[in-house]
Amino acid sequence: MNTHQTNFNKMNPIELTHVRIVDSFWTPWQKLVKESIIPYQWNALNDQIPGAEPSRTIKNFEIAANRTEGKHYGMVFQDSDLYKWMETVAYSLHLDKDEQWEKVMDDVIRLIEDAQEEDGYLNTYFSVNHPDKKWTNLKDDHELYCIGHLIEAAVAYYEATGKDKIIKIVNKAVDHIREVIGKEEEKLSGYPGHPEIELALMKLFKITGKETYIDLCRFFIEERGKRNPTHFFDEECKKLGVEPDKDYSYYQAHLSSREQATAEGHSVRAMYLYSGIADLASSLKDEELLEVCRTLWENTVTKRMYVTGGIGSSSYEERFTVDYDLPNDRAYTETCAAIALIMWAHRMVQIEADSKYTDILERALYNGALSGISLDGKSYFYVNPLEVWPHTANCRHDMDTVKTTRQPWFGCACCPPNIARLLASLGQYIYSSNESELYVHLFISGETKFPIHGEQVRLIQRSNYPWDGNINFQIEVEKKASFTLAVRIPDWCKQSKVLVNGREILVEEEKGYAKIAREWESNDEVTVILDMKVEIVRSHPQVRENAGKVALQRGPIVYCLEEKDNGGNLQDIRLDSNQTFSVDHDDSLLNGVTIVNGKGWKTQSEMDQNQLYTTDSLSFNETNIIAVPYYAWSNRGENEMLVWIREK
Amino acid sequence: MNTHQTNFNKMNPIELTHVRIVDSFWTPWQKLVKESIIPYQWNALNDQIPGAEPSRTIKNFEIAANRTEGKHYGMVFQDSDLYKWMETVAYSLHLDKDEQWEKVMDDVIRLIEDAQEEDGYLNTYFSVNHPDKKWTNLKDDHELYCIGHLIEAAVAYYEATGKDKIIKIVNKAVDHIREVIGKEEEKLSGYPGHPEIELALMKLFKITGKETYIDLCRFFIEERGKRNPTHFFDEECKKLGVEPDKDYSYYQAHLSSREQATAEGHSVRAMYLYSGIADLASSLKDEELLEVCRTLWENTVTKRMYVTGGIGSSSYEERFTVDYDLPNDRAYTETCAAIALIMWAHRMVQIEADSKYTDILERALYNGALSGISLDGKSYFYVNPLEVWPHTANCRHDMDTVKTTRQPWFGCACCPPNIARLLASLGQYIYSSNESELYVHLFISGETKFPIHGEQVRLIQRSNYPWDGNINFQIEVEKKASFTLAVRIPDWCKQSKVLVNGREILVEEEKGYAKIAREWESNDEVTVILDMKVEIVRSHPQVRENAGKVALQRGPIVYCLEEKDNGGNLQDIRLDSNQTFSVDHDDSLLNGVTIVNGKGWKTQSEMDQNQLYTTDSLSFNETNIIAVPYYAWSNRGENEMLVWIREK
Repeated sequence: MNTHQTNFNKMNPIELTHVRIVDSFWTPWQKLVKESIIPYQWNALNDQIPGAEPSRTIKNFEIAANRTEGKHYGMVFQDSDLYKWMETVAYSLHLDKDEQWEKVMDDVIRLIEDAQEEDGYLNTYFSVNHPDKKWTNLKDDHELYCIGHLIEAAVAYYEATGKDKIIKIVNKAVDHIREVIGKEEEKLSGYPGHPEIELALMKLFKITGKETYIDLCRFFIEERGKRNPTHFFDEECKKLGVEPDKDYSYYQAHLSSREQATAEGHSVRAMYLYSGIADLASSLKDEELLEVCRTLWENTVTKRMYVTGGIGSSSYEERFTVDYDLPNDRAYTETCAAIALIMWAHRMVQIEADSKYTDILERALYNGALSGISLDGKSYFYVNPLEVWPHTANCRHDMDTVKTTRQPWFGCACCPPNIARLLASLGQYIYSSNESELYVHLFISGETKFPIHGEQVRLIQRSNYPWDGNINFQIEVEKKASFTLAVRIPDWCKQSKVLVNGREILVEEEKGYAKIAREWESNDEVTVILDMKVEIVRSHPQVRENAGKVALQRGPIVYCLEEKDNGGNLQDIRLDSNQTFSVDHDDSLLNGVTIVNGKGWKTQSEMDQNQLYTTDSLSFNETNIIAVPYYAWSNRGENEMLVWIREK
Repeated sequence: MNTHQTNFNKMNPIELTHVRIVDSFWTPWQKLVKESIIPYQWNALNDQIPGAEPSRTIKNFEIAANRTEGKHYGMVFQDSDLYKWMETVAYSLHLDKDEQWEKVMDDVIRLIEDAQEEDGYLNTYFSVNHPDKKWTNLKDDHELYCIGHLIEAAVAYYEATGKDKIIKIVNKAVDHIREVIGKEEEKLSGYPGHPEIELALMKLFKITGKETYIDLCRFFIEERGKRNPTHFFDEECKKLGVEPDKDYSYYQAHLSSREQATAEGHSVRAMYLYSGIADLASSLKDEELLEVCRTLWENTVTKRMYVTGGIGSSSYEERFTVDYDLPNDRAYTETCAAIALIMWAHRMVQIEADSKYTDILERALYNGALSGISLDGKSYFYVNPLEVWPHTANCRHDMDTVKTTRQPWFGCACCPPNIARLLASLGQYIYSSNESELYVHLFISGETKFPIHGEQVRLIQRSNYPWDGNINFQIEVEKKASFTLAVRIPDWCKQSKVLVNGREILVEEEKGYAKIAREWESNDEVTVILDMKVEIVRSHPQVRENAGKVALQRGPIVYCLEEKDNGGNLQDIRLDSNQTFSVDHDDSLLNGVTIVNGKGWKTQSEMDQNQLYTTDSLSFNETNIIAVPYYAWSNRGENEMLVWIREK
């Protein structure tokens, strides 16, 4: 199978199997996934974590497979917890074979096979509890969503091991879907309330080459939000005897896919849908559909995204709201949404070869996504605000989704496995190639192998990124090879140099990539020097909550102030943005971080405690401020945190 | 009856009957109440407003009185809508007799009499719908609350007309309560979940002189929150077979009354309770209980009050939260709570003769309470935030209680009648007297009559307050009379002068009152000149939302910026607090207001629309800013509004 698709893509990712990460920043995270998160989550799925809420996921499958008796327990999408875990395991098997986990996976796959019904139907909730209600509520019931996650797991496992039993299961499941849903009169003209299967079907097409998968994806995307003349969700509600929703923007079904121009509704659903649309647009070479992606992208990242790459500013419906509505203390910015933005960005850069997508990918990766997990991998944020005051966040109901410290991952099963699969699959985001170019998107040390004109090329990358902007590449070829090394020059970098074998060269920069075209020999070295200053970031004046405030960023890392380093009442600190900041790398702090030191002024809080308002001036003290990476906040106990600092 | 109480009070209010308001600021408001609000609300109570939600209040009484058949409609506290309206009518009858409305009142009183049960029980909801559930849920069922409002109406009507039928009804109702609730074994050891009857009983004592009313009030206050060893609300829940609440702070019943030290829970309930406690403390000369009031007062006004005198910063449970938690855009600050703060302050100043209470009374009156009603009296705010962005407030669910324009008053029946009774009873807040002193608390033109040493004194007050700080008093006496005129020097005033008959005199100031002791003759004139500058107000540094921001105040009026005058994106305006502001009185604007003009800088919003974050500096334009009184905002259509302005 493994066809090389013909599509809009200007490049394709170098796959996990060909990328090895040996990086002082990321390797410890990947190790955490393998050694700690995967076994822990497996125990959770098997209800073997003492004191944790039961998951019952494996039990549900055993009941559906008639291996035991009972009723299904949990959400309609409980199956997806297993599938996301499987996907994580599959990624971790790409480079490091592990017989024990491969055996567990094979057993689980047999269990899934047994739980699948004769006709291909696969969802333990409906098989066990409500066989009569299958496919009656595509809007809310997540049957397609679960199959989507199974497909992603299947593709990852097949790519890691070459074993195709799980591919057969998903083929059968999708064939069943195609019998139930489709253009024909007797079929449902429907699509999932929670997009996910669209991008999964495109992955399935990629490894099977079967056009039917593209067709089904296309059907879902083309039908979405249409009125023919009735909206499918209205029809569905009518059949169910319930009141239709007034507005389907929560589901990104308020308009047809081609009419959508602003990022609306549940932010994770939106990102999964847009990723699927991007895949389809590329595959069909559908310029109009690609333009939809470009428009949605611009709206997302230039109107509705936090500086951390977090998206979805409202806890109600975990959704986007309106342009420039980005409150810091009540940001929802679900970890999963930042991850899903990474997935979409990854697709867009393959199509457009434009680093503006990778810049956002990197921003979300090092900030809004990574903040979701504690340094020890044992606790998680679902919600990633940019300003936390425990004093009020713990008492105000309009902040009740804000947790002031990370929570054990098993409290709910959505973000933790999602960040685990991101970390396990990180290798796929680093490089892309086409016939004559190798693109370096991310600065993560390690190596990759890729063929250029039939020759195997090995590229070794070394750096101290994200703390240092000097990136070294070493090329190893069997014989001389001509190709272009395209290295991303990040948007945060104002001055960069490229040296080849120690000598600075002038390079053409194209859409944010420095392109070094050359006939390469072994031991050729490229050094890219990215000037990594502490930058003062300001928001668009319409971002009301950030008026008069600045954020600190160095390289891809967005910084924050924590009470631990700066005392309480962080809002009383003002920063002189004209100063030169100093930086220090502290190996012992927060698993090793570079901190930013600067001068600020802090309002004296010795004002008469019996006075709430005054016409006197407030006095200020000069104070040293210490900023730490945002992703690493809240690893030293509960305390105040602030990204946007008042500017003097 | 009408006994002169012996208590802690250093003075007593001069009652409505002896105060006539002829004031360019307030008379139009009082006219609105009489000519527009009273008839309108009467029609509403009778379901005669086309298109409005039905009230059914009068119908409920007719059913309870067996004049017609049917079921009760509405809330358990629906009766209180009628009582609050009656109280308003009664106040308006004090000076201006009106036969038509007096007849309506007498008819209504007969209706109430008929609705009262044989044993004195009076609540149409339970009489009609659930006679079996009387007195089973004091925590939530508002039976005592409704009787409290009836008592207030009864006292006001009796004082206005001398008619005592309604007093007999309330005597009977209270006697019934005393049979059900009390110390004795067989009685309920309970108290109301919504305080109100406490302060009402003290009013009833004042006109009847019956100590039993004090005793009942004392019982409610002493039992409140006690554990004997079980909490009464726990016992009640147990009998009802429902789960007890974890925390009774919402009801101010988390601690016994004497243990309470911080303003907690539902802010209106809190204010009504504290008012009742103040009345009781004074009446019993209970220093410990008075100290509770002082402590609660300091916590309320120095930790938990907005600059507008608004209180209750959380829409959830309409409650207080924690010290310094005063978000502007999500302030709840119910109109009723500001009104209730006025009521409490009014009691405290009688006891303590300290203008710090009157200063808060005035702040709440001219700002947080008055903002609750539109200039035409036809629409109302329940929620009075200090910053409104329609763009986000209309879309964010964590701001769903924020209305961006005032709503027709009949949407809910709580704040509109409350502001109506405040305006109708305004006269009682202006003056107090004791044997030898006349206190002037508020600067409202008109006149009052009061006896000093058996002589009738007439005081005529004239000013253009709140726009001008020159206040003129003229004394008329039958023969020379010695007494002290104590005129409040407001906290906002930094320089004041007192002239007697045109000559400046040195006056002793005692707890914020300038005391002019003299033998007065007719035509003696006192002029108090209060320097009324535009003041720059800052918040305590721990008020996070106001860090780096200032508010403008002139005299008692807190100002705000409106989009109408200053363009949108008000958060982008910075103010130089070192400037001298100019003021203009504009008779044609907002029914006549003094506006504040100043210079500011506004961030240019021409930043690239495709850029959300930048490391460039933002540019600023000098701009004229126009501030209007906060109370008058949103009378020119929906627009942005901001009280706390960024300081340059």
